[in-house]
Amino acid sequence: MHAEQKGINEECGIFGVWDHPRAAELTYYGLHSMQHRGQDGAGLVVNSGRRLRAHKGLGLVNDVFQDASFQELTGSAAIGHVRNATEGSHTYENVQPLLFQSQTESMALAHNGNLINADSLRTELEHEGSILQTSSDMEVLAHLMKKSSMETNETSIADALNQTTGAYGILMMTDDTLYAALDPNGIRPLSIGRLGDAYVVASESCAFDQIGAVFERDVLPGELVAINDDGVQSSRFAIRGQRKMCSMEYVYLSRPDSDVNTVNVHASRKQMGKELAKESPANADIVVGVPDSSISAAIGFAEASGLPYEMGIIKNRYVGRTFIQPTQDLREQGVKMKLAPVRGMVAGKRVVMVDDSIVRGTTSKRIVDMLKHAGASEVHVRIASPPIQHPCWYGIDMSTYRELIAANYTLEAIGELIGANSLGFLSEPGLEKAIVKDKSLHQGICTACMTGDYPVAKGAERVLTHKRS
Amino acid sequence: MHAEQKGINEECGIFGVWDHPRAAELTYYGLHSMQHRGQDGAGLVVNSGRRLRAHKGLGLVNDVFQDASFQELTGSAAIGHVRNATEGSHTYENVQPLLFQSQTESMALAHNGNLINADSLRTELEHEGSILQTSSDMEVLAHLMKKSSMETNETSIADALNQTTGAYGILMMTDDTLYAALDPNGIRPLSIGRLGDAYVVASESCAFDQIGAVFERDVLPGELVAINDDGVQSSRFAIRGQRKMCSMEYVYLSRPDSDVNTVNVHASRKQMGKELAKESPANADIVVGVPDSSISAAIGFAEASGLPYEMGIIKNRYVGRTFIQPTQDLREQGVKMKLAPVRGMVAGKRVVMVDDSIVRGTTSKRIVDMLKHAGASEVHVRIASPPIQHPCWYGIDMSTYRELIAANYTLEAIGELIGANSLGFLSEPGLEKAIVKDKSLHQGICTACMTGDYPVAKGAERVLTHKRS
Amino acid sequence: MHAEQKGINEECGIFGVWDHPRAAELTYYGLHSMQHRGQDGAGLVVNSGRRLRAHKGLGLVNDVFQDASFQELTGSAAIGHVRNATEGSHTYENVQPLLFQSQTESMALAHNGNLINADSLRTELEHEGSILQTSSDMEVLAHLMKKSSMETNETSIADALNQTTGAYGILMMTDDTLYAALDPNGIRPLSIGRLGDAYVVASESCAFDQIGAVFERDVLPGELVAINDDGVQSSRFAIRGQRKMCSMEYVYLSRPDSDVNTVNVHASRKQMGKELAKESPANADIVVGVPDSSISAAIGFAEASGLPYEMGIIKNRYVGRTFIQPTQDLREQGVKMKLAPVRGMVAGKRVVMVDDSIVRGTTSKRIVDMLKHAGASEVHVRIASPPIQHPCWYGIDMSTYRELIAANYTLEAIGELIGANSLGFLSEPGLEKAIVKDKSLHQGICTACMTGDYPVAKGAERVLTHKRS
Amino acid sequence: MHAEQKGINEECGIFGVWDHPRAAELTYYGLHSMQHRGQDGAGLVVNSGRRLRAHKGLGLVNDVFQDASFQELTGSAAIGHVRNATEGSHTYENVQPLLFQSQTESMALAHNGNLINADSLRTELEHEGSILQTSSDMEVLAHLMKKSSMETNETSIADALNQTTGAYGILMMTDDTLYAALDPNGIRPLSIGRLGDAYVVASESCAFDQIGAVFERDVLPGELVAINDDGVQSSRFAIRGQRKMCSMEYVYLSRPDSDVNTVNVHASRKQMGKELAKESPANADIVVGVPDSSISAAIGFAEASGLPYEMGIIKNRYVGRTFIQPTQDLREQGVKMKLAPVRGMVAGKRVVMVDDSIVRGTTSKRIVDMLKHAGASEVHVRIASPPIQHPCWYGIDMSTYRELIAANYTLEAIGELIGANSLGFLSEPGLEKAIVKDKSLHQGICTACMTGDYPVAKGAERVLTHKRS
Repeated sequence: MHAEQKGINEECGIFGVWDHPRAAELTYYGLHSMQHRGQDGAGLVVNSGRRLRAHKGLGLVNDVFQDASFQELTGSAAIGHVRNATEGSHTYENVQPLLFQSQTESMALAHNGNLINADSLRTELEHEGSILQTSSDMEVLAHLMKKSSMETNETSIADALNQTTGAYGILMMTDDTLYAALDPNGIRPLSIGRLGDAYVVASESCAFDQIGAVFERDVLPGELVAINDDGVQSSRFAIRGQRKMCSMEYVYLSRPDSDVNTVNVHASRKQMGKELAKESPANADIVVGVPDSSISAAIGFAEASGLPYEMGIIKNRYVGRTFIQPTQDLREQGVKMKLAPVRGMVAGKRVVMVDDSIVRGTTSKRIVDMLKHAGASEVHVRIASPPIQHPCWYGIDMSTYRELIAANYTLEAIGELIGANSLGFLSEPGLEKAIVKDKSLHQGICTACMTGDYPVAKGAERVLTHKRS
Repeated sequence: MHAEQKGINEECGIFGVWDHPRAAELTYYGLHSMQHRGQDGAGLVVNSGRRLRAHKGLGLVNDVFQDASFQELTGSAAIGHVRNATEGSHTYENVQPLLFQSQTESMALAHNGNLINADSLRTELEHEGSILQTSSDMEVLAHLMKKSSMETNETSIADALNQTTGAYGILMMTDDTLYAALDPNGIRPLSIGRLGDAYVVASESCAFDQIGAVFERDVLPGELVAINDDGVQSSRFAIRGQRKMCSMEYVYLSRPDSDVNTVNVHASRKQMGKELAKESPANADIVVGVPDSSISAAIGFAEASGLPYEMGIIKNRYVGRTFIQPTQDLREQGVKMKLAPVRGMVAGKRVVMVDDSIVRGTTSKRIVDMLKHAGASEVHVRIASPPIQHPCWYGIDMSTYRELIAANYTLEAIGELIGANSLGFLSEPGLEKAIVKDKSLHQGICTACMTGDYPVAKGAERVLTHKRS
Repeated sequence: MHAEQKGINEECGIFGVWDHPRAAELTYYGLHSMQHRGQDGAGLVVNSGRRLRAHKGLGLVNDVFQDASFQELTGSAAIGHVRNATEGSHTYENVQPLLFQSQTESMALAHNGNLINADSLRTELEHEGSILQTSSDMEVLAHLMKKSSMETNETSIADALNQTTGAYGILMMTDDTLYAALDPNGIRPLSIGRLGDAYVVASESCAFDQIGAVFERDVLPGELVAINDDGVQSSRFAIRGQRKMCSMEYVYLSRPDSDVNTVNVHASRKQMGKELAKESPANADIVVGVPDSSISAAIGFAEASGLPYEMGIIKNRYVGRTFIQPTQDLREQGVKMKLAPVRGMVAGKRVVMVDDSIVRGTTSKRIVDMLKHAGASEVHVRIASPPIQHPCWYGIDMSTYRELIAANYTLEAIGELIGANSLGFLSEPGLEKAIVKDKSLHQGICTACMTGDYPVAKGAERVLTHKRS
Repeated sequence: MHAEQKGINEECGIFGVWDHPRAAELTYYGLHSMQHRGQDGAGLVVNSGRRLRAHKGLGLVNDVFQDASFQELTGSAAIGHVRNATEGSHTYENVQPLLFQSQTESMALAHNGNLINADSLRTELEHEGSILQTSSDMEVLAHLMKKSSMETNETSIADALNQTTGAYGILMMTDDTLYAALDPNGIRPLSIGRLGDAYVVASESCAFDQIGAVFERDVLPGELVAINDDGVQSSRFAIRGQRKMCSMEYVYLSRPDSDVNTVNVHASRKQMGKELAKESPANADIVVGVPDSSISAAIGFAEASGLPYEMGIIKNRYVGRTFIQPTQDLREQGVKMKLAPVRGMVAGKRVVMVDDSIVRGTTSKRIVDMLKHAGASEVHVRIASPPIQHPCWYGIDMSTYRELIAANYTLEAIGELIGANSLGFLSEPGLEKAIVKDKSLHQGICTACMTGDYPVAKGAERVLTHKRS
C-alpha cells in the first residue's frame, strides 16, 4: 500500500540533466515521475551558463511548477529534487536544491539519503564561526567544501565527502560542471542515462522512461562523477564497499517500472509473492493485494499458489490533499477514505490478503476488519517482506519506528492483534532470493531494518580532517 | 483505460439521502466515490425542512467542496450530482442539482442520462412563453411539471415524465419528499440502499460501500419512488419495458467494486477477458492490461490462457489538472504523459495487450507504439468488448463518435492502423455471456452502440399531452 | 466616509457600450470606475453579433475579471454591472447582467435601483406557471416581456415597464439592439456618452472620463432609448414626471468627479459644506473631514468659516478584504482599523468634524472618541445633509434603517449619544440650495429619506395589464 | 503622488515589540500601518522565549498573513519588516527579518536603509570562507557579529556596526533581548513607544497610533538600545554626528499622520505649500493637488494664496495588483488608470497643480496633459520641494535616478517638456524652513539628493577592524 499511510517516509528523489536545451522542463518531468518519493516540496536549479536560477516551493511538483515560467528558466543544465519532509523541517528554507551564490562562484546541491554525522559536523562548523541557515545536510556539505578550498572542484568535494558518513546520492552543479556522488556502500540508488547527446542522472530509472532517455549505468559506490563540456570523468572518493542497496526500494519505495540496481521492481515484487506462497501457503479461495504497492506480490502469490487473483480492495484515485477527512463518528458509521472493499468479490470467500510490509500494524488491522465486514469468511495475511524490527539510519524517517509492532510482539501475537486468521512473513533469505540474482559485489542488499545488521556503523563518523592539518 | 482519454464521456452520477443528520456530508462522500462518472462539476442541495440550500461549482468534488461549510449545510436530506460536461455546456449554470424556489414551494433536480426529445419540448415551452435559462434537461422537466400542475407531487411528476423519452435516472427533492425515477427500459443504473434508518439512492453501488450503507434493491424500469417521513411509496409512471442496462457500464464506466444490476463489475470484466481468451487466443509470452479499467479483463485473459499477467504499462497517479503538458517536440523526443511502459517486463517479449474498447483508435496506436519502443517483439491487441459502430442516444457523449474507427474500417485495417501484430474483439454473444446470468426481463443489456439495435427509438417522442386536452 | 461602514448600501452601477471593437474591455474599465457603487459582484455580457456571452462572478471587478480572457470576449457591444448584495442575496445566480438565451433569441438585462412591486408581480407570474430562478427584479421584467410578446422590442419592453413601479436605470441588450430605460421620475442616474463613433451608457459620468468618452446627455425620466446600427431612437414609455434625482447621490454615493444630472458632485458637496458653515457655525480652531466622502464638504466648511482645513483623520488605503480584523480585546487596547487620528494635528485643538451623514450614529461616536483620545479639546460635529428619518424604497438598502438614530432621538440627544460638544445638520433647504441651480422640471431632487415625501407611492403599483385584455 | 509611480522607492519599514502577550498580531497591525513603505514582501519573527519562529512571504502584508495562524505564532516579543524590492532582489530569500538559528543561539535581523560598504565587506567575508545566501545587508551584519564573537551581545553588535558605514535603522532580536540601532547621523527614522508595560519600536510613528501605543522618544544617532526583562539599556556605538534626517521622509515617504523627528508630516507639507505660494505665486483660479501625497501641500498653497482648493484630480482606490492594465491603443484612446481629472472642476479654469516632487518628469507631463484635455485653460505646476539632482546613497532606490530630469535640464526647459504654463520649485531654504523649527543638533535634515551635500561620504568605509588586531 501507499507509503504515507504506513508511516514509512523515504526522503527524496533527485534528478539532473546536462546539455539539453530544455533542461528545466525535462527536470520537471523527471521529478514528476518520482513524485512518489516525496510530496512535501520540489525544486530545481537551472544553469544558463552565466548564472544559476532556482524555482522551488512546498507541495507537489504540479503545485510548485504551475506558476513557473519555463520561458525564463532557460539553460542547458539543471538539477532538481522532490522532498519528503520529516517533522519540524517542513519549511520553504529546507526545500532543495540549495543554491549558494557568492561573488565569485555558484553551486547548487540536492541529495537523497542521510548524513549520519551531520549534527556533529554542524556543531564544529558553528563553533568555528560559520552561520548555517537551514537544517539541511547539504548546507553542512557546502560549508565543508568551502572550508576545504576556496573553489569547488573534485578535490574539495572528495575532501568534504570524506568527512561525512552515511547513505546518499548527491547531485551538485556549478557554472560549468554537474557532479554526481554515491555513498561508499551504494545504499541509495543513483543512475546515469542518455537522451541523445545529453546526460541525465536520477534516483530512479522510471525518470528515464518518462523523458524518453536510455539507462546507461548506475553510479558506483564511492564514485564521484563529473559531467561537463569535456565529457564524463569518474573518480573514486572512497574505498568501494560491498554494495548494500536498500531492500525497501524493492519492497515498496520504488515504482514498479523502475530497475533498481539493474533489477526490475515489479518482477522482484512478483517473485517475493511467489517465494511467499512457497514459504507460507494458505488454504483459501482468492488472493487480493493491497493497492498500489502490493499488487505485484499478490499476482505472484496467486500464480505460484494456483489461486485466482481478484480485485478485492479498491483505492479511490481522487483522494488528494483537499479531500475532507470524515469525522470520527462518520468513520465509525462506516464512511471509507482511501480504500474500499469489493463486496461482490470477497463476500463468503476465504481471502489471502497480500501486503508489502507491516510497520505499526494499525493499517493492517483496519484492512482485515474491512474485508471481514464486507463478508470475507477468513482473512489470511501474507506479508511479502520480513518483519521490520530495527530503525533505519540511512534516510528512512526514524520517528515512526517507535512503535514497530514486529519489534515488540511475536508472530502469533501480531496475527491476533490485526485480527488475521493466519499470518505469514517472507523470510530474509526468501527476500534476498527474490531480489539478488548473483551474490556478487554489485548485488548485495541492506536489510538492517529487518536484521539489525547495519552496513555503516553509527559511531564511525570521521572527524573534521582539516582541523588536523 | 481512462474514459477521458478515449473520448467516451458518460454524463453524471447522482446521489440522494433521506433522514440522516449529516445528509450533506454523506452526499459529499457519495459523490466522491462516483468522481469517475463526472469531473467537470459537482453540487448538492440540502434540505433543512424549511428550505433547500445549494452548494455547487465547476471542477472536481474536492475542489468544489473544499470551501464548503458543512456546519451551515444542515438538514437531514440531500441530493447531489457529479457532472461530465459536453462541449459548450461547461458553465456554472449547468451544474446540477438545479434548484427552483418559488414563493410557495421549492424543488431540486439532478439526473444521469439523456432526454431524447428535450429539444422539441424546449421549443414548445418557449413558444408558450416559458423562459429557460440553462441547457439542462432537468429545467425542461421542471417546466413540464409546473405546467402539469401548480404543485409538485407524484401526479405531476409522472405526467411530466410521460412527455419525455430517453434513458435516465432522476432524483428530485421537495421540502418534504425525495423522489427517484428510472426510465422505462432501465438503461441507466439507479439503486436504493439503507444506512441505519436512512435511505440512500445512488447511480452506483460503490457509493453505498463508501458510506457504509447496504444495498437494498435497484429502482425498477418505469418506477417512481417517493421517500418521505411516511416511508417509501412506489408507483409506476410507465409500462415497464425489457430491462436494457447500458453494457458500457460494465465495459468501462462503472467502478470495478460496484454491482450494476446485481452483477459485480470486476467479475464481469474478468469474465469478458476469459471469454476473449477463448474466442481470440494469442501466441504470446505475457499479458498486460491498459490501466485502470482494463486490468480486470487482462487478469481474466491471463487466467484463461495460462499466460502470466505482468505489469507492462504503468499509470502516473499524479497527473492531475495542473500537470503541464509536454510540448509537441518534447513528446516527440519521448516525454511521456499519463502512461509509461515497463521496459523491464516487455523487452523482448511477445505481449498480449488487453484494452476495454476502441473508439477512434489513436490511443491504441500510441500504446502499441510505446510497447514496441520499449522492446516488445510482438504486440497482440485484444479488446474485451465488441467494436463500437453506432452513436449512443442515451447519455454517452455523441460528439466523439464522428470518427468511430470500427464504423469505417475492417478488422484487418484497424489492426494495421494501430500497428498490432494481431487484433481481436470480444463478440457480442461473448459480452452478453460474461454479463447476463439469466436472460430474464431483469437482465437484458443495451448494446445499441455495437449492434445498432436501439431499445428506444429516436422518432418516438411523445408530444406535449396537455396541449391536446 | 465610506458607505459600507455606514450601513447605507446603494445597489449597483450599470454600463453599456455599442459599436466599439473592444466593447468588453471598455466595460471592464467602466465598471472599474464605478466599483464604489457595488463590491459584491460584477459581470458583463458581450455581443458578438451572433451570440451573447457572459463573464461574471462574486467579488470586486478585479477579482472577477483577473481570469477573464478578453481575447475570447469578442464583440462590439456589451453591458455590465457592479453589484451591492443585500442580505441573503449574495449568490452567483443573482449577479447581473442576467442572460436569457432561447432557441430563437437572446437578451441580457442589468439594472440599478428597485422595482417596488416586484414581489406582487412575481406572485402573479408563478401563479400563471412561470418558473423564476433568482431573486432579481430583472428576471421578473424578462418574464413580463416574454408574456407581453414573443419577441423583444420597444413595444414589449414598454408594456413590461408599464406594469412596474419604482426607481431604476435599466440596460438591456439583444442580438441587434442596446436599450436604456429610466424610471418616470428619474430618481436614479443614467447618462449617455460618445467615444468616437461608439455610444456608451453609464450610471455615473466618471465612467466616461475613465475611458476617454464625452458626456452627451442624460436619459430622460420615462424615456426608452434604443441604440443599434440605425442609430439612436428615443421613445417615451411613461408620462414624464417631475425629475426627482436621489439626493444621496450627491451626499455620498457618487464619486466626486462625476456630474449627476449635470451638477458636479465635488462642487455640490463643497457647497453643502459652505451652507452648513453659514447655518451652523462653530467656535473652533480647525476643520477636519471624515475620509473619503466628506472631504469636499469639510473644505467648503473651512473656506466659508475662515478656519484652516487640516488632515485630522487618515484612512488606511490597504485595508482590503483580506485584512485580519483585530479581536475585541485588541480593539479595546486601541488597535485601529480603517481610520486613524492625526495626533499632531488635533491634540489640544477645538475640532470641527465634518461628516456627510449619520445613520445609526455608532460610527460618528467612534470617530468623536478617537479624536478626543488623540487630544482634541472639543469636537463639534457638523453633518453636511439633513437627518435621515425615513426608509428609502428606491434602491438604498432598507434593512439598515431599523435603527435610524435621527428617527428616534432629538438633536440634543444625538449630540450627547455621540459625545459631541455640539452638533449641527444641514437643513433641507440648504441641501437643495447646494445642489439645485434652477428649480425647473429637470433639477428636482428626492429627499424622501429626510422628509418622508415619497415621489412614487408604494401602494400605487399597476396591475398586470395583459390579464385585462 | 504615489511613490511607486515616481520611480522613487524607499526601502522598508521595521517594527518591534517587547513584552506583550499578542506580539505577533501587534506586529501585523504595525506593519500594516507602514505598508506604504514597502509592498513587495513582509515578515515577522516571534519569540516564544524558547525559540524564534518566522512567518514571511512576498507581496502585501495582507497577502502574506492571510494564511498565518496567530494561534501558533505565540510569544511576547517580535520584530517585523515590510520590504520594497529593488530590481533582481525580489525573491523569498531576501524577505526580512532574516532568521539565523544555530545549535546554541538564535537571532533575527531587519533593517531600513542601506549599508554603503556592504559589497566590500561581503567580498572579505567570502574570501575568508563564509557562505552568504542572500543579497541582504543584514546577512553581512550577522557574519560580522559572528566573527567578532561567538555570542550575540552589545559588544559584538557595536563591533559589527562599527565596521559598516551607511544610513540605517536596525532591529535585532535574540532569545532574550530586542536591540534597536540607528546610524551615526540619524538619517533614517526610528522611534520608541509604550503600550502599557510593553515597548514598541517602529520606523514611523503612525504604527504607534495604529496599535494605540504612545510615542516615547526617538532612537538617537549612533545609539544602540537593548530592551529585555531588565528594562531598557542605552549605549553609544559611534560618535554622535549632526542629525541629518532624510528630507524625503517629509516630502513624500512618510504617512501624513506620522511625526518624523517630532515634526508632523502633514503640517510640514502644508507649510511647504505655504512657503511655495510665497516664493512662487501663480495667477490662477483654483489649486489642485496630485493625490495622495501632495494634497497637504496643495491645501497649504491654497490657504496662503487665497485661491480655492478644489478636487481637480481623483485617484481610483481600487487599482490594485490584479488591475488589468489597458493596452497601448486603449490608453491612447483615453482609457485612464489610477488618476482621473475632475472635468467639472477644471474645465475653463487656470489651475495651479501642486505636486511633491519631480523625478523623471514623465508623470508630471501626463498629469498636465490630462488636465488640459479636461479643459484647463492654463496649468501652473508648483513643486513643493527643490529639484532632485543627485543620487541617494542611503536607501532610496538608485536605479531610477539615471534620468533625473532636474540634473539635465534648466527650469525653463523642464517646464516646456512637461507642458506647463509656468513652473516653480520650492527653494532649499524654503524646505528647511518648513521642516526645521530650531536648527539644533537634533533637527538637521539631509538634502543630499537636492544639493549634493552628502553627510556620509562613500569612500569613507571603515575596514574590517578585526583584521588589524
